[in-house]
Amino acid sequence: MSVTLEDARRIIIAAERRALEIGQPMNIAVVDAGGNLVAHVRQDGAWIGSIDISISKAWTSKAFDIATKDLGDNAQPTQQFFGIHTTNGGKVAIFAGGLPLTRDGAVVGAVGVSGGSGEQDQTVAEAGASAF
Amino acid sequence: MSVTLEDARRIIIAAERRALEIGQPMNIAVVDAGGNLVAHVRQDGAWIGSIDISISKAWTSKAFDIATKDLGDNAQPTQQFFGIHTTNGGKVAIFAGGLPLTRDGAVVGAVGVSGGSGEQDQTVAEAGASAF
Amino acid sequence: MSVTLEDARRIIIAAERRALEIGQPMNIAVVDAGGNLVAHVRQDGAWIGSIDISISKAWTSKAFDIATKDLGDNAQPTQQFFGIHTTNGGKVAIFAGGLPLTRDGAVVGAVGVSGGSGEQDQTVAEAGASAF
Amino acid sequence: MSVTLEDARRIIIAAERRALEIGQPMNIAVVDAGGNLVAHVRQDGAWIGSIDISISKAWTSKAFDIATKDLGDNAQPTQQFFGIHTTNGGKVAIFAGGLPLTRDGAVVGAVGVSGGSGEQDQTVAEAGASAF
Repeated sequence: MSVTLEDARRIIIAAERRALEIGQPMNIAVVDAGGNLVAHVRQDGAWIGSIDISISKAWTSKAFDIATKDLGDNAQPTQQFFGIHTTNGGKVAIFAGGLPLTRDGAVVGAVGVSGGSGEQDQTVAEAGASAF
Repeated sequence: MSVTLEDARRIIIAAERRALEIGQPMNIAVVDAGGNLVAHVRQDGAWIGSIDISISKAWTSKAFDIATKDLGDNAQPTQQFFGIHTTNGGKVAIFAGGLPLTRDGAVVGAVGVSGGSGEQDQTVAEAGASAF
Repeated sequence: MSVTLEDARRIIIAAERRALEIGQPMNIAVVDAGGNLVAHVRQDGAWIGSIDISISKAWTSKAFDIATKDLGDNAQPTQQFFGIHTTNGGKVAIFAGGLPLTRDGAVVGAVGVSGGSGEQDQTVAEAGASAF
Repeated sequence: MSVTLEDARRIIIAAERRALEIGQPMNIAVVDAGGNLVAHVRQDGAWIGSIDISISKAWTSKAFDIATKDLGDNAQPTQQFFGIHTTNGGKVAIFAGGLPLTRDGAVVGAVGVSGGSGEQDQTVAEAGASAF
């Protein structure tokens, strides 16, 4: 049961609300079980460089069934996955803001958020994922 | 006065309604005056190959201030712009479904639709643009 | 119910058998419902330039729920999808050899074959798809 | 005497068996003496982000006649090959899971495994290489 557009909209609305609370406009993207984009929004004033990053974070979380933040810990120099950020045509994001979406124990999609600090991206992604 | 997220949502909702009327699920994308993505949705069941195309159509329409359908007429073999579809890293779409969004005589964004025949994409894009 | 590795192997074996019959070594690829690669084989002596094409054909068939041959008819100059072959980062193949795999009315994967003439690729893809 | 499809299948079966033993589904790829893909499988449930990585690991091992793990040691910041992961269009993988396949003292292909921790990828790749 992959993420639907209705699911994606609910996730995005929740994420937007959190972004407003913290006063930082964001890009928010949702992908389905195949890693394919379901929906994306860029709040007014959010960084244009974060369009791609929000989508990459969502893709990465689904592609490896992991929070991008946790992948990042393993992708530092001398760690076991150092270099992973240049695989997959550069689609792999290794910093906070991407979270898997789980249903009945399976990862069926992911949300990716980009537009602020790692901490800000993370809290907005968490708000989005909570609405799933 | 570039396209806002609120504008993009109104455009997308109108386009979705038209897609439902004709019974063909679509990808719908809106870009701003800088050609940068503001929002994208993929209706449930719409082609995953059309995610990229909807965004490319929107980008192309803004990038050249033209309907992609009209650009296509000039991009056929022997025509003046033949080959343009391989420029800009492959982001140029030369078939129906992309329309500029105009305000006070200036192109301030564009909508791109992909998911059906050229005719279907075009009518859904027109419905979206009309809501701007 | 997306294509499994067991499905992919059965499809590939059937396609290989047909390739042997016609005496033309082939690349054969199978993707799942998300367009992601499940399995690929290159028969000894098959063109190395066809590795990528077999995967692209499979991806294209799933991405647009269509046989690549039929997409190709619409992708010729002056036709409604001319230019589609340069979208999606060049992953779109518009010649014979890619077929959707359908289960209960839904496209749940695709097979792509490359290594010979269009006619040869097509017959090998058909043999593969028949085993699904 | 490059790796044949029959060799690749034997290697892959052995690698799959080891992946089952350790309970972690994997992507397994085999390339020939030219670095070109001979076969790939993704076990059900294995990460889709690891499709590309398994192929890159195999390619890298053949391209430099080295285990990717050993290349990784030389590709860390301040080491002699730091930066190599962004060469060759991003195809160079610098973490464990890629092993050269040797016959009569010559590297005639390579196997790449991705889908778990570096240690897991490595043990599965070793099982595959042992079957050559």
